[in-house]
Amino acid sequence: MIGVFDSGFGGLSVLKNFLEECGDYDYIYLGDNARVPYGNKSPELIYNYTREAVDFLFKQDCRLIILACNTASALALRRLQQEYLPSTYPDRRILGVIKPIAEEAARNPRNSKIGVIATNATINSSVYKKEISKINREKTVLEQNTPLLVPLIEEGKTHGEALDLILEEYLKFLFINDVDELILGCTHYSLIFAEIKNKIPKTCSLLDPGKAVAQSLEKYLARHPELGIKKNNRAPVRKFYTTDCPKNFKIKGGAFLGQEIRDIEKIDLIEYHEDESRG
Amino acid sequence: MIGVFDSGFGGLSVLKNFLEECGDYDYIYLGDNARVPYGNKSPELIYNYTREAVDFLFKQDCRLIILACNTASALALRRLQQEYLPSTYPDRRILGVIKPIAEEAARNPRNSKIGVIATNATINSSVYKKEISKINREKTVLEQNTPLLVPLIEEGKTHGEALDLILEEYLKFLFINDVDELILGCTHYSLIFAEIKNKIPKTCSLLDPGKAVAQSLEKYLARHPELGIKKNNRAPVRKFYTTDCPKNFKIKGGAFLGQEIRDIEKIDLIEYHEDESRG
Repeated sequence: MIGVFDSGFGGLSVLKNFLEECGDYDYIYLGDNARVPYGNKSPELIYNYTREAVDFLFKQDCRLIILACNTASALALRRLQQEYLPSTYPDRRILGVIKPIAEEAARNPRNSKIGVIATNATINSSVYKKEISKINREKTVLEQNTPLLVPLIEEGKTHGEALDLILEEYLKFLFINDVDELILGCTHYSLIFAEIKNKIPKTCSLLDPGKAVAQSLEKYLARHPELGIKKNNRAPVRKFYTTDCPKNFKIKGGAFLGQEIRDIEKIDLIEYHEDESRG
Repeated sequence: MIGVFDSGFGGLSVLKNFLEECGDYDYIYLGDNARVPYGNKSPELIYNYTREAVDFLFKQDCRLIILACNTASALALRRLQQEYLPSTYPDRRILGVIKPIAEEAARNPRNSKIGVIATNATINSSVYKKEISKINREKTVLEQNTPLLVPLIEEGKTHGEALDLILEEYLKFLFINDVDELILGCTHYSLIFAEIKNKIPKTCSLLDPGKAVAQSLEKYLARHPELGIKKNNRAPVRKFYTTDCPKNFKIKGGAFLGQEIRDIEKIDLIEYHEDESRG
């Protein structure tokens, strides 16, 4: 079973790519809608919330968890990976979305200046700059926080004048600095991919993060047969959990996943607060 | 001690009015910044979060708590008042912000069509329509959800083109329906009072909710000497609690309160989850 976690609906756009590229596996999705958004909260809090989510998903028999949320990947992944060391927990792995995206951008020979747009917390962590410079020191990375995009998208304002205006302001730095590739550093932004594409310089390419993450998952699963995550012949599991109202999740989430969401259950993550079951 | 609660910073604009109109009392403020915003979450969750906050504030020796948040007042106040009945808890009272605002609007002889703008949760509860019609059945109440205003204000976009555009869209209903008084049904909106005033019809007045709530508190305290909440001669208490980072609270909160915030402490409301200490 593969667990996919996000603070809200954004991770469903990542799951959508997983279902397209590696759809034969079983997936559980968890959205922490009761505490969304994470992007403007403090690093310690984001770590605590993510830890509760991860503990929940491992208890649902997930062997691999993808933090399909840039903010959680930026602020919580490294610490969680150190707490769940493969030597102690051979069948518990946690991956984020930032590394595969950073790798793709760092290895692209056609860019030299890379732009990143993301939430306040992700930008403040400078995680993309750090990850890209680990792989390729020749690249210049310019980061811009874009805190209003998540609320706009969550409220369904995925096109129109207000979005245009805010995008124009946020994307000015691409023109000023001659950026030649833009990373969408938040899973929500896939829903306004076309609108963003329309507003960036013609010489700037747009990295499709969902595709990069899905391809990386496929390779990871091939490299780690010992996890025992197998493609199956029966109808694969698609189970959804939310920490707030399942009815809302069904309605709003469908737009992110691009298909109807059926099996939804409400859970309370607070039970997983300060979980002592770990070593 | 008087407790003032809000999901985040908005209630500080209410506290600001309290300090101006009834500044001789002791105040404790609690902002649940770790789980803000409440306005797009489900009714049950808003009740649970508010209950935890109220239980915390009573434990800090508050005898009166003001839910300085329209969403919490709309979704949690009635149930909490029934749980904390004065007959069982003679020194524990909870008040909201909606009733005093609704009363002022309902008793104003110069309006007949009243508009309300607020978060999704407050509008979905129709609480203003219900409260106003209880007092005066002659008034027509028109409600409009304005979910993007809180994120815009929290991100400091309290003026500029994007706010103008979104306000124009949200406030269209005032022109179409010849509304003659507008209620700001969210404590955040006080920060864009002037911007809203600029965008409404000339024949429409704008109710100042902070003032109405502060005047109502003053009268309430005068009517209820048995609570033992007294003006004091020494320097009054101004204590602030947040569920997220105190440093952020100090920086952002100051703009809402209109003065520097000094004594801030971080607390964890989860300890007050499903508190069994009540009768």
